[in-house]
Amino acid sequence: MFHPLKTRMTLLLNWRSTPYHAPVLLSRALGYYEEEGLQLALLDPHDPSDVTEIVGTGAVDIGLKAMVHCYAAVSHGFPIRSIGTLLHEPSTGFLFLKSSGIKSFYDLRGKRVGYVGRFGKVILDDLAKRAGFHPGDYEAVRIGMDLVDAIERGVVDTGIGIGCLQGVELEERCGEVGLLRIDALAQLGCCCFCSVCFICTEELIEKEPGRLTAFLRATLRGMTLILNQPEKAYQLLAHHYPKMADPLSRRLFFHSLPFFSRTLENVPRDWEKVGRYAEHLGILSPTSRNGEIFTNALLPTHPYADTEMLPLCAV
Amino acid sequence: MFHPLKTRMTLLLNWRSTPYHAPVLLSRALGYYEEEGLQLALLDPHDPSDVTEIVGTGAVDIGLKAMVHCYAAVSHGFPIRSIGTLLHEPSTGFLFLKSSGIKSFYDLRGKRVGYVGRFGKVILDDLAKRAGFHPGDYEAVRIGMDLVDAIERGVVDTGIGIGCLQGVELEERCGEVGLLRIDALAQLGCCCFCSVCFICTEELIEKEPGRLTAFLRATLRGMTLILNQPEKAYQLLAHHYPKMADPLSRRLFFHSLPFFSRTLENVPRDWEKVGRYAEHLGILSPTSRNGEIFTNALLPTHPYADTEMLPLCAV
Repeated sequence: MFHPLKTRMTLLLNWRSTPYHAPVLLSRALGYYEEEGLQLALLDPHDPSDVTEIVGTGAVDIGLKAMVHCYAAVSHGFPIRSIGTLLHEPSTGFLFLKSSGIKSFYDLRGKRVGYVGRFGKVILDDLAKRAGFHPGDYEAVRIGMDLVDAIERGVVDTGIGIGCLQGVELEERCGEVGLLRIDALAQLGCCCFCSVCFICTEELIEKEPGRLTAFLRATLRGMTLILNQPEKAYQLLAHHYPKMADPLSRRLFFHSLPFFSRTLENVPRDWEKVGRYAEHLGILSPTSRNGEIFTNALLPTHPYADTEMLPLCAV
Repeated sequence: MFHPLKTRMTLLLNWRSTPYHAPVLLSRALGYYEEEGLQLALLDPHDPSDVTEIVGTGAVDIGLKAMVHCYAAVSHGFPIRSIGTLLHEPSTGFLFLKSSGIKSFYDLRGKRVGYVGRFGKVILDDLAKRAGFHPGDYEAVRIGMDLVDAIERGVVDTGIGIGCLQGVELEERCGEVGLLRIDALAQLGCCCFCSVCFICTEELIEKEPGRLTAFLRATLRGMTLILNQPEKAYQLLAHHYPKMADPLSRRLFFHSLPFFSRTLENVPRDWEKVGRYAEHLGILSPTSRNGEIFTNALLPTHPYADTEMLPLCAV
């Protein structure tokens, strides 16, 4: 009676679909997954905080999620692992309108500060403690995916977001924008805690490595098109996703280019660094780190070696 | 190691989230699901055609889908059943700009006709055959969720859509809109084939009837608020979903009111009628209809009997 299609694969995005998902969106629209024998269903979450659990229970095959959340998932007992990177180190921090008068982290005293999900609050509270704030010096407001609206409507004064995503949209809608980078504030050296990775369960990696490699190969094909021919790639994206055929989406796309992973590789240094940061934040207990949190073993080897690789958008 | 939360529940919508999902969106925003002990994760599909398979394999707990697709899913061997109705008989048919000159189905000769997924094409081809069209008299174009854009950009001349969804948006963006209702063309008597139902696997119904009833009770609570106090409900929706705080979303919300199910009940007459239509279309083989396709057994009994029920939006 019950015949799930062998080739069906589900990918749960980390955020409502946006131009920084272009490598996946384009690969799907151009039939690259189908050519690999995969029928890929894409799903958007209403709440980004749901993703690791849904992936961790194996309900969907693959999910996208930031590094720091991957450690949190492992710490909660979800047996997930990253099999590749979509975006390396997108600049992340406290976004605000310059007209707000905010100039440094100390100006957040007395302000309402938005964050997406619970780890954003952990990061905020840690920075506030380092800065010597007292409890009550600021108000933390959970706002999910609505930072830009929340700032525009005056619900918050600032909030944690990504420069090439909410930063660009806020600027487009409201004027000049400032960004206090969390990596600078926390002395991390890079925004790798926010690098966006493809994650799945260890069980799936053991059972179906071939399908996962096929997925990564098709994704890398779209990625290569984007990095080599961004203008053409954007035109194709806008054609297949009419909602992205507006000036804002165009800006979001081009501002994402520097962060797209040329090879989809996991960077061991970044995982190590984010692991230490997660331990510092109390998100990850040292004993949870026994297993590997990532693998590069499933990445395709030189799949499009015949494609000219231009240095335009080196990561 | 692996502890999925007992209270976690996933709902995959039938379409990107839109004001006709307000009963679910509002119940979630107002904490009604949490009060029932449910932590509900909402997911949007990129392709509506993916929903029945993802629900049918049990990857998500509940999905939303139109009646005709439920029969198609059963016919494909997915053991799904409807446990309630969100929208009854939303007016569905061929949407077009009046400036196109289209006045009757016969005017579709020589036109490019958009449809969402494969059953839309089956419906179109059936109507064309009844009308005496020859193959090649029209061009069918699969456009997924992008009908309004496709008409605006001149990619298609008309396409299958819902009056209170794409019809309203098309009118808002492009001018006067006409609708050739499929129920009239196909002599069905109502648009119940397009009624939108909550579906899940038979296995889940057997295993966790209590959780499903809790889900329906919370949903009905939001529904009751909407039908009794639509203006207040819209303000709450716009507050919690800032993307829906624009004039178009407001129109979409109020145009959906007449179709919302006051009780969430499955209507046996409609299922019977759509079953016959599905057989006529060749989507459903008579032998697939052994099991029940719906149940009302999980619906809560008078959960909010103390709430005044106004006759404003009688279905």
